Amino acid sequence: MADLDLSALHGSLTDRALNSMNFLNEISHHYPDAISLAAGRPTEEFFDLDDVPRYLGLFAAHLRSEGLDEAAVRRTILQYGRTKGIVHELVARNLAVDEDIQVDPEAIVVTAGCQEAMLLTLRALRADASDVLLAISPAYVGITGAARVVDLPVLPVPDLDDLPAVVKAARADGLRPRGFYVMPDFANPSGLSMDLATRHRLLSLAAAEDLLLLEDNPYGLFPAAGIDRLPTLKALDTSRRVVYLGSFAKTGLPGARVGYVVADQTVGDGGLLADQLSKLKSMVTVNTSPIAQAVIGGKLLDCDFSLNTANQREREIYADNLRALTDGLAERFPNGEISWTVPSGGFFVVVSVPFTVDDALLTRSAQDYGVLWTPMSHFYDTDAPVNALRLSCSAVTPAQLRLALDRLTAFIADQLVLSGRSELDL
Amino acid sequence: MADLDLSALHGSLTDRALNSMNFLNEISHHYPDAISLAAGRPTEEFFDLDDVPRYLGLFAAHLRSEGLDEAAVRRTILQYGRTKGIVHELVARNLAVDEDIQVDPEAIVVTAGCQEAMLLTLRALRADASDVLLAISPAYVGITGAARVVDLPVLPVPDLDDLPAVVKAARADGLRPRGFYVMPDFANPSGLSMDLATRHRLLSLAAAEDLLLLEDNPYGLFPAAGIDRLPTLKALDTSRRVVYLGSFAKTGLPGARVGYVVADQTVGDGGLLADQLSKLKSMVTVNTSPIAQAVIGGKLLDCDFSLNTANQREREIYADNLRALTDGLAERFPNGEISWTVPSGGFFVVVSVPFTVDDALLTRSAQDYGVLWTPMSHFYDTDAPVNALRLSCSAVTPAQLRLALDRLTAFIADQLVLSGRSELDL
Repeated sequence: MADLDLSALHGSLTDRALNSMNFLNEISHHYPDAISLAAGRPTEEFFDLDDVPRYLGLFAAHLRSEGLDEAAVRRTILQYGRTKGIVHELVARNLAVDEDIQVDPEAIVVTAGCQEAMLLTLRALRADASDVLLAISPAYVGITGAARVVDLPVLPVPDLDDLPAVVKAARADGLRPRGFYVMPDFANPSGLSMDLATRHRLLSLAAAEDLLLLEDNPYGLFPAAGIDRLPTLKALDTSRRVVYLGSFAKTGLPGARVGYVVADQTVGDGGLLADQLSKLKSMVTVNTSPIAQAVIGGKLLDCDFSLNTANQREREIYADNLRALTDGLAERFPNGEISWTVPSGGFFVVVSVPFTVDDALLTRSAQDYGVLWTPMSHFYDTDAPVNALRLSCSAVTPAQLRLALDRLTAFIADQLVLSGRSELDL
Repeated sequence: MADLDLSALHGSLTDRALNSMNFLNEISHHYPDAISLAAGRPTEEFFDLDDVPRYLGLFAAHLRSEGLDEAAVRRTILQYGRTKGIVHELVARNLAVDEDIQVDPEAIVVTAGCQEAMLLTLRALRADASDVLLAISPAYVGITGAARVVDLPVLPVPDLDDLPAVVKAARADGLRPRGFYVMPDFANPSGLSMDLATRHRLLSLAAAEDLLLLEDNPYGLFPAAGIDRLPTLKALDTSRRVVYLGSFAKTGLPGARVGYVVADQTVGDGGLLADQLSKLKSMVTVNTSPIAQAVIGGKLLDCDFSLNTANQREREIYADNLRALTDGLAERFPNGEISWTVPSGGFFVVVSVPFTVDDALLTRSAQDYGVLWTPMSHFYDTDAPVNALRLSCSAVTPAQLRLALDRLTAFIADQLVLSGRSELDL
């Protein structure tokens, strides 16, 4: 039999990042009746199958209005297509409307989800074994995993103040930091955001250290109640310092799997980094499904390019749930036994507890308490124990959220007892 | 400005394979009025935008018939989904019906086109710098390019008889051949097929040399008139020796960008290679667009799992065009000045000419003669001159094909004169 040994396969396959994702996917399948505060998926409340043909129709009508005849419309949506995508001009208009980002549509590569945008960017930037990626820590496991797939080590940056020291130490070790991955708005997993002064400071630091910034922004449209959005790094970027990683999974439709990257840096003789990423894309997925792009294109047309407007109902749900989550924690843990972040938006709250949170504990929580969450250890690229867990509030009803919090409270209370803490304070 | 030097980016970006694809894409955009015998895309004659919602509806009805409620149907098609895909069981039934391949649906990973299937497979197999891929030569540029993206060198195998010697030489050099890429049916670009005895011999050779076979089969359903199809390597494979790379681009709908890989090899403790590829996929594209998968799933349901039946009209067009192409060459070049393959199926004919065929010549052909084709040099991984060009007959009408052949004949006649050959024989 032509069977294989794991040690003869690529090293990423035994790496914690890839196995994290796998474990987290599997546990939710193993405990389908547990309430999930783990998944960062968007609410399904307004999903409508009829939207798909409706968006396709809007996009087809748009193509006709651009002068395409019927054969060309069919070809654009159903045939192989342009490597950089067919909705790039619509994406550029969306970025102008929602983010005040002005960008040449030719600098946009439409990708098979934002994950492919990350992979292409890291693949391009990893030229040899001295290259490293810097990433804010804790970091989204998808960036760490994509880096592993292209053999690019990741150096964690726990705090922006650490950035110059991390860069200096890396260079002293003969390493070449190629970029710094950040999620300035309502980050996954921390829930934290950068204030405006920090954004400006980061752009200055990146210029001083000659680093690209890789800005990932899946949650920017979802501020908490009463919070004003801040400009993205890309909107503040006047020197092509920022590669912007865009997602429509939370704001468009996750089932389309359409994302994009804005890469307006010039390369060598004047071409764009986007064109280099496009060459890589031709060998990764050839082009993003034009049918899927047409669905997203139709949604962009439908909302006159403002996904901010299109997501009004979703924005309210997320803001209400986020408040319910932090208020619910405050009601249930009034005496400081545990602590949690109070994010200014997004889907995630990090709860710090006085015991180590590992996968075994998650399994126990799922099995005995019927509630799922994510051990924060999955977002650190080390084996060090982590006393925190991530809660997500995007894909639950208010009733489910309350029940999940009750279950979580029982679980934490029992853990406090087991870990030698008094339960009296509860 | 944060601009970049090409030399600081990944080496694949200066590689001929990636720039080949780019050049070939660009030239067809530069000469939109030239008739293309270059593109290997499927015929657009039966494209129908209404098929998309119809297939979506069929797939949704199928999910309901499997017991899913409306919320679960919406979630399956519109939400993030299973990494290995949602149409794996339908694909397995299609493989049984059309190819007599019996495979556990769990061994299938549905991918963002067959290109991603290649990339994932090569990424998994490339563990260190001693690993190499063997590939039949000339080879589809997409496999060479995918290998470049994962830093995997490709050793060409011009003829199956060379395989043992190539393997032996590689091993003597300290290299580890990880697999042998082949397209046994109506290959791109050669148009050639393996006979049944050769298929059996290849399976034996692969077992003797302990090589995986990577079988790519995008054209198998399109035999020439009067030709019987042969079993694929995977259908003959009794020892999990073959990784089968599947495409729906020519048989389903190219705009869906849905492909798959059958990887039923066990890895280590009994999991499947498919599960390892799935871990990589979670870091490349997360999952293949469920909307796109639903379109292909609906088409598979619509034809009762026989794409062979569903493509009856397309099969006739391709068979007629292939005969018209080779007959047309025979009429126009009766005296042996040039030669060409007469394939038993597929889209491609290779024409050998007594002069070097390079990109400059293609540009001249496009500009001065209004006909596009593909220099065969793009399918060899060397700079050696190649005296051949590839013609594709899949995406032209009979009238376009005749006109293109007339133009090609004028072009070749002029080249024969320029290269010092007499034009008298024409």
